[in-house]
Amino acid sequence: MTAIQRLSRTFRENSSLAKMLIVFTVGGGGLVAFSDAKSDDGISIVNPSEADDKNKKKRVVVLGTGWAGTSFLKNLKDPSYDVQVISPRNFFAFTPLLPSVTVGTVEARSIVEPIRNIVRKKNVNVHYWEAECYRIDAKNKKVYCRSHLAGDPNQIEEIVVDYDYLVVSVGARSNTFNIPGVAENCHFLKEIEDAQKIRRKIVDCFERASLPNLSDEERKKILHFVVVGGGPTGVEFAAELHDYVTEDLVKLYPKVKDAVKITLVEATDHILNMFDKRITTFAEEKFQRDGIDLKTGAMVVKVTDKEISTKQVKNGGEISNLPYGMVVWSTGIGTRPVIMEFMKQVGQGNRRVLATDEWLRVEGTSDIYALGDCATINQRKVMVSFPYRPNFVIKTLLILNKNLDLLVHNILSFLSASLGGRKMIFDFQKMIFDFQSRNLILSSGLVSYEDIWAIFQKADKDDSKTLTVKEFQETLKDICERYPQVDLYLKNKQLSSLVDLLKDSKGDSAKESVEVNLEEFKAALSQVDSQMKNLPATAQVAAQQGSYLADCFNRMEYCEENPEGPLRFRGEGRHRFRPFRYKHLGQFAPLGGEQTAAQLPGDWVSIGHSTQWLWYSVYASKLVSWRTRALVISDWGRRFIFGRDSSGI
Amino acid sequence: MTAIQRLSRTFRENSSLAKMLIVFTVGGGGLVAFSDAKSDDGISIVNPSEADDKNKKKRVVVLGTGWAGTSFLKNLKDPSYDVQVISPRNFFAFTPLLPSVTVGTVEARSIVEPIRNIVRKKNVNVHYWEAECYRIDAKNKKVYCRSHLAGDPNQIEEIVVDYDYLVVSVGARSNTFNIPGVAENCHFLKEIEDAQKIRRKIVDCFERASLPNLSDEERKKILHFVVVGGGPTGVEFAAELHDYVTEDLVKLYPKVKDAVKITLVEATDHILNMFDKRITTFAEEKFQRDGIDLKTGAMVVKVTDKEISTKQVKNGGEISNLPYGMVVWSTGIGTRPVIMEFMKQVGQGNRRVLATDEWLRVEGTSDIYALGDCATINQRKVMVSFPYRPNFVIKTLLILNKNLDLLVHNILSFLSASLGGRKMIFDFQKMIFDFQSRNLILSSGLVSYEDIWAIFQKADKDDSKTLTVKEFQETLKDICERYPQVDLYLKNKQLSSLVDLLKDSKGDSAKESVEVNLEEFKAALSQVDSQMKNLPATAQVAAQQGSYLADCFNRMEYCEENPEGPLRFRGEGRHRFRPFRYKHLGQFAPLGGEQTAAQLPGDWVSIGHSTQWLWYSVYASKLVSWRTRALVISDWGRRFIFGRDSSGI
Repeated sequence: MTAIQRLSRTFRENSSLAKMLIVFTVGGGGLVAFSDAKSDDGISIVNPSEADDKNKKKRVVVLGTGWAGTSFLKNLKDPSYDVQVISPRNFFAFTPLLPSVTVGTVEARSIVEPIRNIVRKKNVNVHYWEAECYRIDAKNKKVYCRSHLAGDPNQIEEIVVDYDYLVVSVGARSNTFNIPGVAENCHFLKEIEDAQKIRRKIVDCFERASLPNLSDEERKKILHFVVVGGGPTGVEFAAELHDYVTEDLVKLYPKVKDAVKITLVEATDHILNMFDKRITTFAEEKFQRDGIDLKTGAMVVKVTDKEISTKQVKNGGEISNLPYGMVVWSTGIGTRPVIMEFMKQVGQGNRRVLATDEWLRVEGTSDIYALGDCATINQRKVMVSFPYRPNFVIKTLLILNKNLDLLVHNILSFLSASLGGRKMIFDFQKMIFDFQSRNLILSSGLVSYEDIWAIFQKADKDDSKTLTVKEFQETLKDICERYPQVDLYLKNKQLSSLVDLLKDSKGDSAKESVEVNLEEFKAALSQVDSQMKNLPATAQVAAQQGSYLADCFNRMEYCEENPEGPLRFRGEGRHRFRPFRYKHLGQFAPLGGEQTAAQLPGDWVSIGHSTQWLWYSVYASKLVSWRTRALVISDWGRRFIFGRDSSGI
Repeated sequence: MTAIQRLSRTFRENSSLAKMLIVFTVGGGGLVAFSDAKSDDGISIVNPSEADDKNKKKRVVVLGTGWAGTSFLKNLKDPSYDVQVISPRNFFAFTPLLPSVTVGTVEARSIVEPIRNIVRKKNVNVHYWEAECYRIDAKNKKVYCRSHLAGDPNQIEEIVVDYDYLVVSVGARSNTFNIPGVAENCHFLKEIEDAQKIRRKIVDCFERASLPNLSDEERKKILHFVVVGGGPTGVEFAAELHDYVTEDLVKLYPKVKDAVKITLVEATDHILNMFDKRITTFAEEKFQRDGIDLKTGAMVVKVTDKEISTKQVKNGGEISNLPYGMVVWSTGIGTRPVIMEFMKQVGQGNRRVLATDEWLRVEGTSDIYALGDCATINQRKVMVSFPYRPNFVIKTLLILNKNLDLLVHNILSFLSASLGGRKMIFDFQKMIFDFQSRNLILSSGLVSYEDIWAIFQKADKDDSKTLTVKEFQETLKDICERYPQVDLYLKNKQLSSLVDLLKDSKGDSAKESVEVNLEEFKAALSQVDSQMKNLPATAQVAAQQGSYLADCFNRMEYCEENPEGPLRFRGEGRHRFRPFRYKHLGQFAPLGGEQTAAQLPGDWVSIGHSTQWLWYSVYASKLVSWRTRALVISDWGRRFIFGRDSSGI
C-alpha cells in the first residue's frame, strides 16, 4: 500500500512528528470534509438557510445564453426559483445556420432571438444582465462578472452575484492549438460576429481582386480561400462558399471568377470522419467535382499574414506554403479562460474540459452544474479505478507514539470505515501538519477503487459472495441505468441481457441458473467500459442537457421524496433523478448545390436533394421562435428568387 | 475703372516696365486662354485626340455610388462610353429609410443594392472599383484613388485613373460645425454603418440601464437620448426611436421604461421649419403628447463624453448641461476633404460647396460635372454682377513706350473686343510679367458684368436700343429657360408674361405696344433674382440631377448638331442642352405612431395615418430593385407581426 508506506516515511523522516500520537477527536471532528464521496451519489443539495427561510426563492444563476442555457431557461417551469441570466450576448443564436450566414443565404438577424423575449412570458422570475462572468467562486457561492457596455475600458461595471445553484453554460471558444499566427490571421466561425466578418471579408476579397494593376498571381492569392478543419462546420462553410461563388459572385465579378480557389485542409485522412463512410466518400467526390481542393492528411503548422503553412502528416512530412486571401479556422473547440480558472479551483486543473457527473453536476462541487460545450460528462466506469482528489483534514490530539506503522494503519482503517468500508487505494501527494490548528491535512491525494466491487456487493443481497441470476435480474435495470455502457455493450454484442453475458463468460450456455463470484463477474464485464465515449460538442447535446436539467429543477422537491433514479450502489436508497441520457436524433452535413447528407439514428444514411429538403424542414421546425422561423424561411425564399447579396456591409 | 488704375499704377511703380511697349503678338497669340468666358456658354467639350481617334470610347469616371451617381449610371444608355465607377462602398443605399434602420423597422441589407448588380445588365460598359478618390487633378484629367480593402494600413493600393469626363457625386459628410466634442462623442446618421451603430448603441443603453447597482440618476442618464437637429432626418429618427421604445423595448425592459427620455435639440424656433406651418405645428404637438422633449432655440456649444451643453439662442443665452446616454447628430452637411481640395484647385476656395452651372458642370472646369450633395447649382443672376476669375496670358513684344495710360486702354479695349464687346469691369489682383517668356500674366482677376445687358442686347435685334413687345416675345421663352427666376417671379406676381411686367413698370397698362430702354428693362427685372434659392440637399434633387446628366450624355452627339437649349445671350447660337430644372415631387416627414406629414407640390399638406400609407407606397415604389422592394415590404410586415428585434448585433 503506497499510501501507508509514504505516510510512514513522512512520519519517520520528521522526528518531531514521529514522537506524536495522533488521536482522532470524537464528535464534530474526525473526517471533516469528504465532499466527493457524497457528490458521487447524486444531487444532494444542502442549503444552510433552507430551514429558516422556506419561503425565500432559490437563486439560480445561469451563465451563458447559448444552446444549453437557453434550453434550460425555456424548460424551467417551477416558479419557486429566482433566475438570473448573465451573458455577454443578449440573444440566443441558432448556430447550425451560422455557415449560411457567412455567405448571406440566411441573414444574421434571422437566426437570433433576444433572450428577454424568450423568457418574457414565463411564470418563472427570470432576469437578464448583459455581462461576462470572469470568475466563479464556488466556496462562497458567488460569480464575478464584468459589463463592457459603456464602451469605455475605464468604465467597466463590476457585478458580483450570489447563487444557490449555478448553471454554467458559457460554451467554448475556437481552439487554435497554439499554432503561431492562427489567432491573428484566421477567421473563426463560432459567433454571429464571426459570420458577419467572414461575409464582409469574402466580398472584400472579390473587390480587391477586381482592382486594376494586379498581377494574375496576386489576384489568385487574394481569391484563395482556405478552410481549415474537415468537420461538419468546415465542410458546410466550404460548400456554402462554393455555392455563393458559382451561383452569385461569378455573375457580378466575371473578370476574376477564374482566379477563385477553395482549399479545405484536414489533418486526418478524410473529411467528415465522424460520419458514415458512404457520406465521407460522397462528400469527397462531390467536392472534387466542384473543384474544391481537398488537402487531407495535412496539419497547419504556421499562418502568417500572407501564407498558411501545412505539413503532411505522413510521407516525410512535406511542408507546403499556400498564399491565401482568407483563412477560416474551424478545427475544434477550446476552453474559455473562466472555465480554466474554475477547473483549477475545483481540482480539475489537469483536465482539458470541465467534468461533470451524469447528473451534470461539476465534479468537486455541490451546487454547480455545467452543460453544453464547456463541460463533458465523466461517465462512471465499471472497471477502471476512479481517482478522487479529496482534501482530508484530520483534527488531532498530539500524543507521543513510537509505533508509527500502527498509527498509519489506524488512520487508514478509520478512513476506510468512514467511506463505507469500500476497497480503496490511498495515494496522498501532500501531507501537512498544521501546528497552529493541530490538524493533519492530507491533500491532493488519490483515493481509487473500482465500482464493480460496489455493484457486486449491492447485487449480492444475501451476502453469499456469489451472484445468482435472480439477484442479478433484480438489479439489472439499475446497473444499466447507472452504467449505460453495460447496456450499450449488450446491444453491440447482441445479447438480450446481462445474464447472457454472464453465461457467455462462464462458457456454459445450457445451464439455467448461473452463479458467479466477483472475479468471474469482473471477467464478464471487463470489456464494457470500452463502449464509453464522450458526447460530441453539438447543439443537440447542449439542448438536451439544458432541458434535462430544467426538468430536474422543476421536479426537485417531488423527487427529493420520490427518488426515481437508479439504486445508489455505494450508499443507501436511490438517486433522486435518472442520469442524463443523450438521444441522438441524427446529424446533417450540407454539401452545397442543394444536396445534404444525413446520418440518422440506426445508421440510416440519406444523401441528396431530398435530404436537403429534410434539412430545410428540420431546421425550420427547430428554430427558436415563430419570428426566426418566418425570417429564415423568407431568407431561403429570397435566396431562391434574388440570389445572395454582395454589398460590403 | 479700378483695373485701369491698378494696371497703370503697376506700370508706373515699376520703372523698367514703364519703359516697355507691349505689343500683342498677332496670330496664335493675343488672348490665349479665357476659359470661363467659353464655359459660361454651356457645355463645350474639347478633346485633343477626338479627331484622331473617333472610334475610341470616351472614358467617363463616376465618383460615388449614392443617389446622384447611381441615378446617372441607371439612366446612361449610350454604349459609346467606357464608364469607370469608383466609390468606397460597393452598393447603393436607399437613404430615406436610414432612420428606420436605426431601430430595425427595416433591415440595413434590405435598403442596399450592389452597384455591380445595378449596372450588370446594361449595354454600357461599366466597371466598378472599390476605392476612395482623394484627389482630382483637373489639369491632367486624372483622379487619384486609394483602396483600403487589404485591411492593412501599410498595404493601401494607389490607383490613378484618366478620364475624358468626370462625374463627381461623392456626397457630403456630417457637419459638426467644429463644435468641440461632436466628432468624438456623437453618432451621425449618414451611412448604413452609422445606422447599424446607432441600433446597437440603443440596445446597449437599455442593457446598461438594466444592470444592477445603478442609481436612478445614472439609469436616467444612460437612457437619455438626445437628437440634435430638427430637420426631417432628426425628427424622423426621434419619432422612430420613440416608437421603438414604446412599442417594443418597454415590454422587454419593463423595469427601466420610466427612465427613458428623448430630447430633440433645434437651434431655430421650430422643428421642420422647411415645411408648411401646419406640419410644424402638428409635429410639435404630437411630440409633446408623446413626451419627446423639444428644446428649440437652443444651440449645442460643447459635447463631452458625459454631457451635452446647449445655449439658448435668445433670452440671455442660458447654458444648460444635459447628461446623456446617446447623442445623434443630424444638423446638416459638410464638404468632404477631396472636394475642399478640388475647390481650391478650380478657384472656388472661398465657397462652402462646389459650384456648378445650370448644366451641372463645375465652374472653372471644362469636363467635370458635379451633382448631388457635394455640389450646388450657381444659378445665373440677371442683375447682380457676376465675378469671373480668368487667367489671362498676354503674349507680348517688348517695345519702349511712355504713354502708359494709352497702353492700358489698348489692352482693355482688346480684351473687351475678344469677349464680344461686353460691358465689364476688370479688377485684377495679380499682374506678373514673365521676363523669360515675355508674357504678361493677369491672374486671379475679376471680370464682372451684368447679364441683363447681354439679354437686352440679344433681344434688341434691330439694335434700336429699345425693346418692343414683338422683340420681347421672341426671346421670352429663352429668357425664362435660361433664367428660371424670371418665370418664378412672374408666377408669384401672378403676371402671365414678361410683357405685363414691363407694362407694370412703365405704369401705362393701357398702351399695347410697350417699348423700353435698358434702364427701364433693368427696373422691371430688378426683383427677379430674389426668387433664386439653392436646391435642398435631398435624394430627390440628386436623383433628378443624375438622370438629367445621363440624358445629356446619351444625347451629346445628337445635341451637338441639334442644340435644344436656350439662346446663348453672350454668344452665337443656342446651348446644346436645356439647363437642369428640379421638379419638386413633395416631401415626407414621418412622425411616428403610423402618422406621417407630407408636403406635396402646390402646397398641398397631408397629415395622418393615410399619409403613412402614402409614404409606404411611395417608398416601396421608389426602391432601387425588386429585391430591395420585396425585402423592405417583408420587413414592414415582419415589424407589424413580430415587432422590432432587440438583439445586440
